Parts: sequence; C-alpha cells; structure tokens
Amino acid sequence: MRAFYIAPFLIFAICGQSPVLAATVELQAAVKLDPLAEIRETALKSGQAYALLESLTTDVGQRLAGSENDAKAVAWAKAKFTELGFDRVYTEPVRYPVWTRGEESLVSVSPATQKFSVAALGGSMGTGAKGVEAEVVQFDDYKNLESAAAGSAAGKIVFINYQMLRTRDGSDYGAAVISRVAGASAAAKLGARALIIRSIGTDQTRNPHTGVMRYDNTPTRIPAAAIGNIDADLLAAMIKRGKPVTLKLQLGARTLKGDYVGANVIGEITGAVKPKEIVAIGGHLDSWDLGTGAIDDGAGVAITMSAAALIGAQATPPKRTIRVVLFANEEQGVYGGKAYAAARVKADEVGQQVIAAESDFGAGRIYSLKTNLSDARLAGLAPLLRALAPLDITLGANDAGGSADFGPMREAGAPVADLQQDGTKYFDIHHTARDTLDQVDAEDLKQNVAAYAVFARFFADE
Amino acid sequence: MRAFYIAPFLIFAICGQSPVLAATVELQAAVKLDPLAEIRETALKSGQAYALLESLTTDVGQRLAGSENDAKAVAWAKAKFTELGFDRVYTEPVRYPVWTRGEESLVSVSPATQKFSVAALGGSMGTGAKGVEAEVVQFDDYKNLESAAAGSAAGKIVFINYQMLRTRDGSDYGAAVISRVAGASAAAKLGARALIIRSIGTDQTRNPHTGVMRYDNTPTRIPAAAIGNIDADLLAAMIKRGKPVTLKLQLGARTLKGDYVGANVIGEITGAVKPKEIVAIGGHLDSWDLGTGAIDDGAGVAITMSAAALIGAQATPPKRTIRVVLFANEEQGVYGGKAYAAARVKADEVGQQVIAAESDFGAGRIYSLKTNLSDARLAGLAPLLRALAPLDITLGANDAGGSADFGPMREAGAPVADLQQDGTKYFDIHHTARDTLDQVDAEDLKQNVAAYAVFARFFADE
Repeated sequence: MRAFYIAPFLIFAICGQSPVLAATVELQAAVKLDPLAEIRETALKSGQAYALLESLTTDVGQRLAGSENDAKAVAWAKAKFTELGFDRVYTEPVRYPVWTRGEESLVSVSPATQKFSVAALGGSMGTGAKGVEAEVVQFDDYKNLESAAAGSAAGKIVFINYQMLRTRDGSDYGAAVISRVAGASAAAKLGARALIIRSIGTDQTRNPHTGVMRYDNTPTRIPAAAIGNIDADLLAAMIKRGKPVTLKLQLGARTLKGDYVGANVIGEITGAVKPKEIVAIGGHLDSWDLGTGAIDDGAGVAITMSAAALIGAQATPPKRTIRVVLFANEEQGVYGGKAYAAARVKADEVGQQVIAAESDFGAGRIYSLKTNLSDARLAGLAPLLRALAPLDITLGANDAGGSADFGPMREAGAPVADLQQDGTKYFDIHHTARDTLDQVDAEDLKQNVAAYAVFARFFADE
Repeated sequence: MRAFYIAPFLIFAICGQSPVLAATVELQAAVKLDPLAEIRETALKSGQAYALLESLTTDVGQRLAGSENDAKAVAWAKAKFTELGFDRVYTEPVRYPVWTRGEESLVSVSPATQKFSVAALGGSMGTGAKGVEAEVVQFDDYKNLESAAAGSAAGKIVFINYQMLRTRDGSDYGAAVISRVAGASAAAKLGARALIIRSIGTDQTRNPHTGVMRYDNTPTRIPAAAIGNIDADLLAAMIKRGKPVTLKLQLGARTLKGDYVGANVIGEITGAVKPKEIVAIGGHLDSWDLGTGAIDDGAGVAITMSAAALIGAQATPPKRTIRVVLFANEEQGVYGGKAYAAARVKADEVGQQVIAAESDFGAGRIYSLKTNLSDARLAGLAPLLRALAPLDITLGANDAGGSADFGPMREAGAPVADLQQDGTKYFDIHHTARDTLDQVDAEDLKQNVAAYAVFARFFADE
C-alpha cells in the first residue's frame, strides 16, 4: 500500500505533471466533444425532475380536469417554466365538460353484508340518492356480455370479472379496458340497471382503478363503477356459493352543466438557427382524483420539463426550438391533445413539427425508441442510438403512435416517436389512490430525463 | 444410474421382502404409536381451518362488535360447532357499548387541497356535521406530546407522526400504540380540537389502521382518527415546506345509547376421564369493520375450532375436556375475556383450567411455545416438545401472558400458554381494509392447526 501512495508523487517529480490531473482533463475534454453525451451525463446526475414531481404532488396534488386543482396546476406549470428559464411560456385554451365524483359506496345486502371498495368510472352518471339495489349477474369478459341473449341482465347489476394480464408493454390494456369504456352501454342494452367491473389493473389490492367510460347511442344510460381486484374476488366467491347476491350501489357522480375552459401550458427553449422548427415533448397535466397523479402523469410532466430545461442550460443552444407541451384533460378524452393539433392544423403549422414524443406511461425505465420517420431520417439516427445505448435503450419498430396527446398531430401528418417505458408494474397503481410520489424511483426518473434530453437535443440539431 | 434401479430388485430376490414396503409399514406403525404425532400429521393434511375461515369471511364478513354482523357471527359459530361434531355448544352473554363509524373524511384546505385516507379510532366521538377545521401541529411521538408546554396545541389539530418498527414478535406495538390509545386526551390537555395519528402499522400503503382509543378523565374530549402511512408522509412533507397547513376533519363516529348483549360462543369436546378439567383454546369472534377480519381474528377462530374438531374425530378420546372459546368484543376492551373469567371466578371454576391459549396474532407460522407453569409440570413437557419439533416450534420463556382474552383468567390464577406466531408482516394489515382472506397462507394455517391440536391433546392427556 505504501508503494501505491508514493508512486504518483514520484511520477510528478519526474515528469512535472500529476497523472490524476491529466486524467481529469482528458475526461472533461472527452465529454465536451459530444453534446449528446454531455446532456445525458448531466441529466443522470440531476435531481431536478424529482424535485418538480415532489412539488407538483405536494403543493398541488390531484389534478382532476375542471376541478379547483386544475387551475392551480396551470398556475404551477407557468411559474415553474419561468423559474427554469424557458424563453417563452404561454397557454392555449382547451374546452371540456366537468365531471365530479361525489360520495360513493357499494355493499352487498344479501346473503351477507359486505362492504366493497368502489370508484365511479370517469364520466359515469350517478345512481340518485336512493342508489341502485339489485341482484348481480356475472360475465367473464366484455365479449360474453356483448354476445349475451337479449334481456339476460334485465333489472340486474352486471358484474364483468375480467382480470387484466401483466406485461412489460401494457399490451393487455386494450383487451381489458373495453369493459370500462363500453361496458355500461352493453349492459344497458341487456336491461341492466348498473355496471360493476373488476378493476382494469394487475395488482392484488383493494384499490379500485377509475378511468374514463363512454355512453354510446343506446337510449338507456346506467351508472358504472370499478371495484378492487380483491373485492372482485370476494364478490365472485359469494356468487359462486350459489345463492342470489344482491348489491346496493350508490354513486354521487355527475357531469356539471356547461364547459370549463382549461389550458395547455407550453414552455419553449428557442432554437438558435431554425426557431420555427419544433421538437415537441411533454406530458399531460391533469390526473385522476384518487391519488396525487405522480406516475400519471406527474412523471411525464417533470421528465420533459427537466429535459428541456437542462438543454436550455447547456453552453451551446439547440438549433431548433424545443417545446414542452403540458396537455389539459388527457384522461377524459384527449381534449388537450386534440386542441393542440387543431390549432396547428388551422395555423398550417403541422409541418413545423420535426418530431414529438409524450411521456405518459409512468416512471419506469425507458428500454426502446420507436419512431415514425422516413427512410432518409432513419438512416441518420446512429449518433442518437450511440448516445442512448449507455441508458440501455435500443431502436424499436418504425410504427410509433405518439402516445395519446401527440396522436392527433400524427394523424395530421407530423412525425412522432415513442420512448417506451417498462410498464410491468404500471397497471398495479394506474388510476388508483396509490398513484403517489413514493411509487417513483428517483434513479429511474433520471434515466427518463436523460433519454428525453438526448432525444430532444439530437432532433433539435439533426 | 442403472445399478441404482436394479439394486432393490436384487435385494427383494435375495431377501424375499421389498425394502420400500418394509419401511412404509414401519413408518405407519410409528405414527400409530404416538397420538400427538398422529394429530399433528392429520392437521397438516387438513384444509378444514381454511374452509372455516373462507366461510366466516365470505358468508359473514366484518364483525364489528354490536353490528348486525356480530349476531350473524354468533349464529355462524354455533352452527359450525354443531356441524363439526362438538359434544356441547353454548353461549354466555357479554355486555358492551356499540360504537359505529359513519362517514369520514380528511382534507387539507391550505396551502394545497389534498385528500387523505382516514379512519376514526374505535371509541372516538364524531366531529359533528360541520367538522373540525384547524391548523395542524406535529409531534414526533406520544412522549413529545405529553411533555409539551401547556396550550401549545390550543385550537389546533394535533398530528402524531410516530412510525412503528417492524419486528417478528410485534414488540414495538406497545411503544407505538400509546399514541392511538391515549393520544386524544393528551392532545385535549394541550387545548387541541382533534387528533390525527400516523397509523400504528409497518406498511407503506395508504390504508389507515383503526383500533381502540380511550378517553381518560380529561374534561374535554376530542375526535381522533388515523391516516395511512403514505398519507402521513405527505402531511409531514407539506408541514416541512414551512407554510401553515390547515386540515378539515369530518368523522360521523358515535357510541350508541345503552349496551348491547353479545355472546362468547363455546364448543366442547368432552373429556373421557376428567370431563370437568378444561384445556381451553380459542380466538375472538369480533373484528374491526374495515376488512373482513381474516387475520384478526378469523384465523384464530378457524385454527382453534379445527384443532379441537380434529381431536374430537380421533379414535381415542381426550382424557380432559377441550373447550374452544370464541370471545365477544375483544377489540374494544376485552369484554368477552373479562366476562369469561368473571363467570369462572363467580362459579369457583378457575382451578378447573389446566391450561389456556388464545390464537390472536394473525396467520403466520408458530415458532415458540411460552408457558406459565409450575416446575413440576415444566419437567413433563418433553413429549409435547418432541411432537412440536417437526413444526419448527421450540420452548420459550415461562412468562406467558395468555393473550388478551385469557389474560383475565391468568390474573385469576389459572395457567396459560402462548403459541407465538411470526408477526413480521402482521402489522402491515392489522386493523385495515386489507385484513382479507387472500392474506392467509393455507400451509401456514395448517401448521398453526397442527400446533394447537398437539398442544391441546397433550394437556388433555397430561
């Protein structure tokens, strides 16, 4: 050990230079050679996104569209963009109806008196003060409900008991979510008085998962709610015992009269060479009301705000403009995303979008970059992929959808990308009371910021 | 490998006897020689206790003392004892007040609007319809609250933020639970208008843990409630940011006028030689109202009912009577345990209790037998310990308390024992909505039944 300590001094004495100092200088030079690597390493060391997310979930909390906290979140976002040194901060109006939850409960009144954890589906009507009391009839999935004989649920409460499967990419969500979105009208067609679904979630807890539902043109509308997965097991066990099970559902949910005018909040780092060409990233500012909207989509908000802010703080400015769009009311119908695209179409600005990517799949690590680009642009991605490789991100298919909020821009002809996150655990807490800050891993969040920063910087300078 | 297969046949050919068959016969003979080993092996194969627990949690559900389900549980227990072939099934009256929960909510009204998961503590008064709205003042633990300067919580809501520690034997429960039991009166002494505590639980979830509280002779009484551990973290984070935090608490809790007359439900397997000498085991039939009372104490009910029933089905009857006592209203003040002991004292029957043990620490595996016996009886425990050894149960100290419900019998001079369960995860779900059947491991439950059966059979024949 003694020799180890002496050696550097001997070298210093002989050569007149510290080898440690020389190595440091060399390392710094290497980093400076590559702006993508530089922003990646900066982002991996930054706690900025986590601090933003902590502030959003602590100082604002849930952000149900049209609620008091919707306006607070808009004010929060404008203040934070300004604090972070964005060159331009502005809002664009978005109109949408206001749905409110109210009090809710579900109990069985016979043969046993059990209390179930329940949450109205977003957009559902209420039951009225007296509630709906009726025998329950169970269907294994939406398909069985849809193909059931006419009148087979007449006067009853329909219970759809489909258990969503766990996958990395959330690929069973589509098959599962049809029960939530279309179940009420399908049940109403069969004469049902209300719909109860097993939560669209992969957890084994009692937390109900809310989420949007729609009434189609079926003349009768009925109230709809989700129960926790453990509660669904209990209800199924009661039904299996053979005696008729009577439930009483009370939902205070309702949609208010008249539209609310919310806002997409936008912050820009102005491009130094081609300021009118736009690299757009973002997330949605609204959330459901049960948790604090940490993973859906506080994480996306924090990740993309921080990625752009860190680029804004680099010595060399980006050539094109980096725009962070925080969308209004994604949850209840992509209102912000549609309004954003409509405004670009109207102003003939769709062509200005070089690329766009939304972060809206929680806070899990990114593993793949999907694109939607021409062959010529694909051929030039090598520097981007080299910069993403240390983050364990590889190139995926060229079939990106642009997530919910940039979907309308893609439909209008703009190129989009998807930075795919590991969603293995996402549907454990999606749309539940457990969507809270503690679910977010600070290191995973840094990896996301690094990926978005590298992505945005690359396309800004492409 | 070939030689391995040939060898047994060669031995059979040479000796005229299959070595495998010989070993099996020997094993069966060994089992028949030892009634303790026999009942242990029978119990380890039996699904009876799990079926009882499934029935209690599905066909009855929560069993809050004095609720409609209290009477249903008494009827359930009598019917099950009879079905299981107990020789004598009867009830003894127990009087207690009836506390009801009602609607409850807790929100912060400034600086941010947050909704907290909340549950009134058992025995708490309500807030009235208008609720209590006040600034919150935080204390790290009960000791800090108790030693605070007079008036230091005047007009405020006190928040005790003590985090219970995880241990195998639940040894931090005593230190933690003082906040729940005595916090309201301590806060009232300082002029507080309400008490909020971090849940007495080791989980990181949003589930509030209810449990009993007491008002001492402090003239002012204030409402008291628990919030989930994650909610406590959020509240602490809000307070830490430095601006005054105002909470609004609404509790519909109240205690009804007049007492309810519930019952201890008792089933007996009559002793063949000394029927008046009693080996008593049991659990408490009541539960809190948030879950279905699966681990607290449906498990204890099912374990001890099944252990005695399996002994009753043995070819050789026990010498002494095995009595299963399912106690009324343990949760709100050990009413059943006190009534049981008072009746024995009055009838001068305390001396008939050979031993007693209550199962009331969930459904985790038993690892130790604690006793409270004379030296002479301790010296004779070897056969019991030999029979418990294959279940990984060793002898503990001779300082057993007899759990809550046999505590009053111990105080009256009767011997007791504690079959100590692994409680590492017990306080994750104790007194919460997550106290449901899925938390119980069927194999662990069998180990418990085997232990209680061996224990009861040993002392019945001692």
